[in-house]
Amino acid sequence: MNEREILTEYVYQMVAALVQAGVENVVVSPGSRSTPLAYAFASTKQLHMYRQVDERSAAFFALGIAKATVKPVVLLCTSGTAAANYFPAIVEASYARVPLIVITADRPHELREVGAPQAINQPNLYGSHVKWSVDFPLADNAAPTLPFIERHIARAVAIATSAPFGPVHINVPFREPLLIDFRDELPETAFKQSRMAQLMPSKIAQQELSSILRASERGFVIIGELPLGTDLTIMWDFVRQLKWPVIVESLSNMRTSVPEDCLPYIITTYDAIMKSDEFKALVKPDTVLRFGAQPVSKFIMQFITNSQPTAYIVVDEDPMFRDASGVSTHFIHAELGEWLTNLDISDTALDAQYLAEWQDANDIALEYIEHYSEAAVDEGAMVSRLLRFIPNGSDIFVSSSMPVRDIDTFLMATPKDIRIIANRGTNGIDGVVSTAMGFSQGNNRETYLLIGDLAFLHDINGLIASRYQECNLTIIVMNNDGGGIFSYLPQSTVEAHYEDLFGTPTALEFNDIAQMYEMDYIRVEDISELSEKFTTVKTRSLRLLEIFTDREENVYAHRALWNRINAGLKAWQS
Amino acid sequence: MNEREILTEYVYQMVAALVQAGVENVVVSPGSRSTPLAYAFASTKQLHMYRQVDERSAAFFALGIAKATVKPVVLLCTSGTAAANYFPAIVEASYARVPLIVITADRPHELREVGAPQAINQPNLYGSHVKWSVDFPLADNAAPTLPFIERHIARAVAIATSAPFGPVHINVPFREPLLIDFRDELPETAFKQSRMAQLMPSKIAQQELSSILRASERGFVIIGELPLGTDLTIMWDFVRQLKWPVIVESLSNMRTSVPEDCLPYIITTYDAIMKSDEFKALVKPDTVLRFGAQPVSKFIMQFITNSQPTAYIVVDEDPMFRDASGVSTHFIHAELGEWLTNLDISDTALDAQYLAEWQDANDIALEYIEHYSEAAVDEGAMVSRLLRFIPNGSDIFVSSSMPVRDIDTFLMATPKDIRIIANRGTNGIDGVVSTAMGFSQGNNRETYLLIGDLAFLHDINGLIASRYQECNLTIIVMNNDGGGIFSYLPQSTVEAHYEDLFGTPTALEFNDIAQMYEMDYIRVEDISELSEKFTTVKTRSLRLLEIFTDREENVYAHRALWNRINAGLKAWQS
Repeated sequence: MNEREILTEYVYQMVAALVQAGVENVVVSPGSRSTPLAYAFASTKQLHMYRQVDERSAAFFALGIAKATVKPVVLLCTSGTAAANYFPAIVEASYARVPLIVITADRPHELREVGAPQAINQPNLYGSHVKWSVDFPLADNAAPTLPFIERHIARAVAIATSAPFGPVHINVPFREPLLIDFRDELPETAFKQSRMAQLMPSKIAQQELSSILRASERGFVIIGELPLGTDLTIMWDFVRQLKWPVIVESLSNMRTSVPEDCLPYIITTYDAIMKSDEFKALVKPDTVLRFGAQPVSKFIMQFITNSQPTAYIVVDEDPMFRDASGVSTHFIHAELGEWLTNLDISDTALDAQYLAEWQDANDIALEYIEHYSEAAVDEGAMVSRLLRFIPNGSDIFVSSSMPVRDIDTFLMATPKDIRIIANRGTNGIDGVVSTAMGFSQGNNRETYLLIGDLAFLHDINGLIASRYQECNLTIIVMNNDGGGIFSYLPQSTVEAHYEDLFGTPTALEFNDIAQMYEMDYIRVEDISELSEKFTTVKTRSLRLLEIFTDREENVYAHRALWNRINAGLKAWQS
Repeated sequence: MNEREILTEYVYQMVAALVQAGVENVVVSPGSRSTPLAYAFASTKQLHMYRQVDERSAAFFALGIAKATVKPVVLLCTSGTAAANYFPAIVEASYARVPLIVITADRPHELREVGAPQAINQPNLYGSHVKWSVDFPLADNAAPTLPFIERHIARAVAIATSAPFGPVHINVPFREPLLIDFRDELPETAFKQSRMAQLMPSKIAQQELSSILRASERGFVIIGELPLGTDLTIMWDFVRQLKWPVIVESLSNMRTSVPEDCLPYIITTYDAIMKSDEFKALVKPDTVLRFGAQPVSKFIMQFITNSQPTAYIVVDEDPMFRDASGVSTHFIHAELGEWLTNLDISDTALDAQYLAEWQDANDIALEYIEHYSEAAVDEGAMVSRLLRFIPNGSDIFVSSSMPVRDIDTFLMATPKDIRIIANRGTNGIDGVVSTAMGFSQGNNRETYLLIGDLAFLHDINGLIASRYQECNLTIIVMNNDGGGIFSYLPQSTVEAHYEDLFGTPTALEFNDIAQMYEMDYIRVEDISELSEKFTTVKTRSLRLLEIFTDREENVYAHRALWNRINAGLKAWQS
């Protein structure tokens, strides 16, 4: 075989192994060093190839596809800082537990660390933020090469897709010339399949924990964002059986599509009612059970830390279990579904009055929130109304910072079928547009993105993807001209440097960018226009709905709502 | 002292140490965790604080200021993926050898790796791509804390600013509450100054090398981008004394402000003349001396590799010296100026005929290039004309990919005072707008940016900086709708997938973005409009000159020029 044939075999063997391992989607950024693999991806009909010029956005786009499809997604870029641009999305994928197969093309060994152009030290580039990293050999005629490649691709995908999911990194050096021969068919793979272990809870854990749960008189469950692909029917069976108050963050997707018999146990207003000292005194728990990621609300977490329950049990797939409270007493290492289906909680000792306190407080808060949605005119009220306008069967991708908090405040338990998705691995405001666009590509449902002006601006390059593939997404930008979340923090009490360091207004509006990208643009000046304007949103294309709100008004309105709920809870208790 | 007083002392001691070490500029991105330091920066009159919301752009902006000022620049961001967004610019700073002091705010130890929001594993986040990394202790009352901080700040700046320059990373955890008391005066620093060693060439190296240079009959010097702050008067003295052909890349800044008596030795058309096999046979060297980074032109580097000179001497400040040719024979570890001023090259054996061959070929190529500049209508000809229009005393920041190559082709040796700057550490097309904007901030000369449409789009967020500080930069976008450089690579001979993977046209134009950012916008449809339109460019503001060119036409025109030069050299030799 000549060099070109050897290179051709090498890259198609990689692609065959990726396809064999279940990869369906690849996101490619243009570059020269990655040419052999880019050609192989583009010419393989089993793969769907997406494109995005900005590698930072490309990686978040891939993250979005992986979130929607619950399958590993491949990234490919050229050598140099292109690879460094993947870093923010890789970090997010690591903490959000999303399977990304990051492939970086590299210079051959003789061009590494010798001042060659576009060459950086790429092996282990992402440090502790990938589950695994491997540096591939150059394409050659040696017998071990193709078998090695095939099995290391299989290994990479297996690692990325075993619990907890996460990103892996494959660094692939290519020597010039970079051209290959196109092939219509992929080669056979000798390696057939990785069958990974399931993380079963230990027997003793099941027994011990079943006893603790059965004996508890004042327990609650708190559920944050669940692992990708969690089967919610198991969750609902558990809620039904346990009959405890279940505090669900909106990202758990257990506020929507709620089965009727589970509705009484679902507590959604925890952020509001946890601001009431009287209520907190009333519901001091003996047992707390936590699943999933840390919830958005600080107040519920502070409540747990301060109340120091006798048993605070965290279930996690990762030995690096997530508990920032510092008061956990039990850690169960297991896949959630495996643990829940093996519990014995047929007969619990829960105090009926304790459950009623939660339910009553939740109902009171709900009433205030519903009235607020009708009467108020701020950003929160707008989010609340949008939740009504967005049709059944849709998904909402929610930006970090204020949108995720507004959704958590205003999304009530409902049988309506809407899913809430966000980048909450590291809570960044970066890459949000791209992740939503990738999500909408992998999703067969209508997708909406709710985002603030700074987060939209931060990833405005997410829109470049729309130049390379048909995109369908309604982007709802809440433009309050700056960083709205800081108005809720102690920094807002200090006048000096506030706008410079925290408010950071840009005075930008986004009609021009909509025009540049040929998006439909709808401008909403205030809440009175919202309903009518929303009906003009067309689906099956890329659109921008820009809603103008006022940072000061928003925080004032929010605080007034919390005060009313607090007063309501006081009146109820006396 | 209470917690707030302790925190106040801690951050002002950091700032005092930074100021004491010579830091003048800081670039801050908004965030909560970084609040104590951000307050301290904002309230310190000895520091100039710049702001940028997008951390990727912020880091390149800081890189640009450091390049212009030849001084360390501080970056500050909050915890989480904000810090990961710095990575591309840090990698560039590492290979381009630019002193950045990267400060990332972090969560306190009890909130690390426990699922707390916006917390990622930050110590050593940038791996091998910083010269040094340190994780600071929390603010406390212990006696060792402030002395440690003060000296580690001094150490960080000393490491970043000793040859070779580079980025360092300081990770600083803060525990809530994050508010401090503002101070008008900085505290005293007990630590006064780091005095770093100079990298003097060893005596034996001076003697040996002087002998080699004196004995050489067929030698040339090749000079790429020189270390930041290189004193060019020493370089010119060397050129004068040595009297060898000196091949200067445009980024060496030895094509402009050329002293008259040095002009005869300066060879600028090496990329063109190295395409002639006849010429290469004529000037096979016995000795090559190389300074600075690897030059843009592949052809000159291939010539060196293929001709295997008896002595190929690389001078570098870094033991990781830059030589991708694989034929180097001597490495001199020293600061360039120290080495040059101590050489004894008063009387060299250079063959006068050999020098004349270089000079004649260069003159022939120059003539064709000058004629081309008058007659041709493509992107290259436009760049060539822009070089004439841009006034004396200006600087041109040049994007990687085609602009840097066009400048290298068309910028001839001239007494005119223009400097050429680029991000050539890793040759990325990312962060170029931001680096140029940062450069123009640190620069007291009029600055122009020459950039292609994809690179402009990649870092369009560089423009956000203009919302937070007065910016003065003329951005000249060569819009050829996609990746022009690939047309020169072997990939362009393969029709299949070419536009999808390499051309990647977006069909975007930038008048809307100019409007969004309130920039002056000038549209140039073809070269006939260039001269007149260029005169309408106003200075002292942010402007966009968008020039439309055609990818196919550009490559055709370039090739025609090279063929004519090749034919001209053939005719001359026969």
